[in-house]
Amino acid sequence: MPSDPVLTVFRASPDGGRGLARDMPVRWALEEVGRSYDEERVSLAELKASAHRARHPFGQIPTFRRGDLMLFESGAIVLSIARRDPGLLPTDETAAERVVSWMFAALTTIEPPIVEREQAGYLERDRPWFAARQALLDERIRLRLGELAAALGQRAWLEGEFSAADLIMITVLRRLEGTDLASEYRTLADYVARGTARPAYLRAFRAQKAAFDESHEEVPHAH
Amino acid sequence: MPSDPVLTVFRASPDGGRGLARDMPVRWALEEVGRSYDEERVSLAELKASAHRARHPFGQIPTFRRGDLMLFESGAIVLSIARRDPGLLPTDETAAERVVSWMFAALTTIEPPIVEREQAGYLERDRPWFAARQALLDERIRLRLGELAAALGQRAWLEGEFSAADLIMITVLRRLEGTDLASEYRTLADYVARGTARPAYLRAFRAQKAAFDESHEEVPHAH
Repeated sequence: MPSDPVLTVFRASPDGGRGLARDMPVRWALEEVGRSYDEERVSLAELKASAHRARHPFGQIPTFRRGDLMLFESGAIVLSIARRDPGLLPTDETAAERVVSWMFAALTTIEPPIVEREQAGYLERDRPWFAARQALLDERIRLRLGELAAALGQRAWLEGEFSAADLIMITVLRRLEGTDLASEYRTLADYVARGTARPAYLRAFRAQKAAFDESHEEVPHAH
Repeated sequence: MPSDPVLTVFRASPDGGRGLARDMPVRWALEEVGRSYDEERVSLAELKASAHRARHPFGQIPTFRRGDLMLFESGAIVLSIARRDPGLLPTDETAAERVVSWMFAALTTIEPPIVEREQAGYLERDRPWFAARQALLDERIRLRLGELAAALGQRAWLEGEFSAADLIMITVLRRLEGTDLASEYRTLADYVARGTARPAYLRAFRAQKAAFDESHEEVPHAH
């Protein structure tokens, strides 16, 4: 059994290699702490098959195997990486617990209306209520973004040095890329820019993009 | 400074004392590990004031203070309690990390469509699209409940003995109480019944109910 961790990722990510799939925060975390990893690319059909279900009860990516440990949920995986190697959690335990609060806040308070807005874009675009609901969702998202911007204030990062809290929060905020909401809060746009300029982020981004590009090279050209 | 942890809770919970507010999992966790706590009851107006914002960036309950540590987000607080005292995490570190995966799954994979359904009930009940959207949300919830029921199978708890994973997952599933979805999956209805029969759950439930009842006794009767 390889000692390197093994990450499952999309064979061909539905986001087209934009780094919005949930392997991205795990890749980023591994790059920040300087751990190499192997990746196993899984097709959409394989995701829902029983072999993958045994690893991930909800048929999603990523999963993360390290020795006899098999984890799922990107938040839990990033926290596991952060607890094992230095670089993503403050050494002071009180500060480290604050980082965990922010990780949960990113995924359970900030992200849900953002994902809901995305899902509506896929599932409800042709429904007569689409525009009216997007406006409602935008207001819910703005409320949270305003609160987050106020909490961040003039600081570079949420809790002291760059941490797993920023890694997860910036991953969540990136889901707004290409919408007006992404640029409405200058504090947050600058924060995302600081995070995505990090060398570890850039290495992770290139790795997920390479996976996507290679999946397309596999497809025989029709002409 | 008191050494007991201090939990902020609603002065008068909008759920009418049904134990669906987010102080409930924290109370339950503290009861499971046998820690006493003080509670500070906060009105809806106080929640949005700057004194509380300094504790909780999103103006919500609960917050949790222990010495100079101030945490927010119920998932993070329950995890902190579980890491400090025995009773909610397996002693084996691999198994403990699996529990954390399930905690994130409960709050970021299972809960969002359930909360979305609730929010629609408040915010969109009078909109022409309400019924059609509820049907869409019900299908998204059913998908996740079916996967969860399959993953749980014949086991009593998600990961060995009762753990923080079950505490959070059962708290999430309880949000479906009173809907048809709550009884559709027998495996999950039995699972919730096992969790909510625990003495620690019952003590936590009574404590939050007492807070609600006392808030009503404070209101002068109109006649």
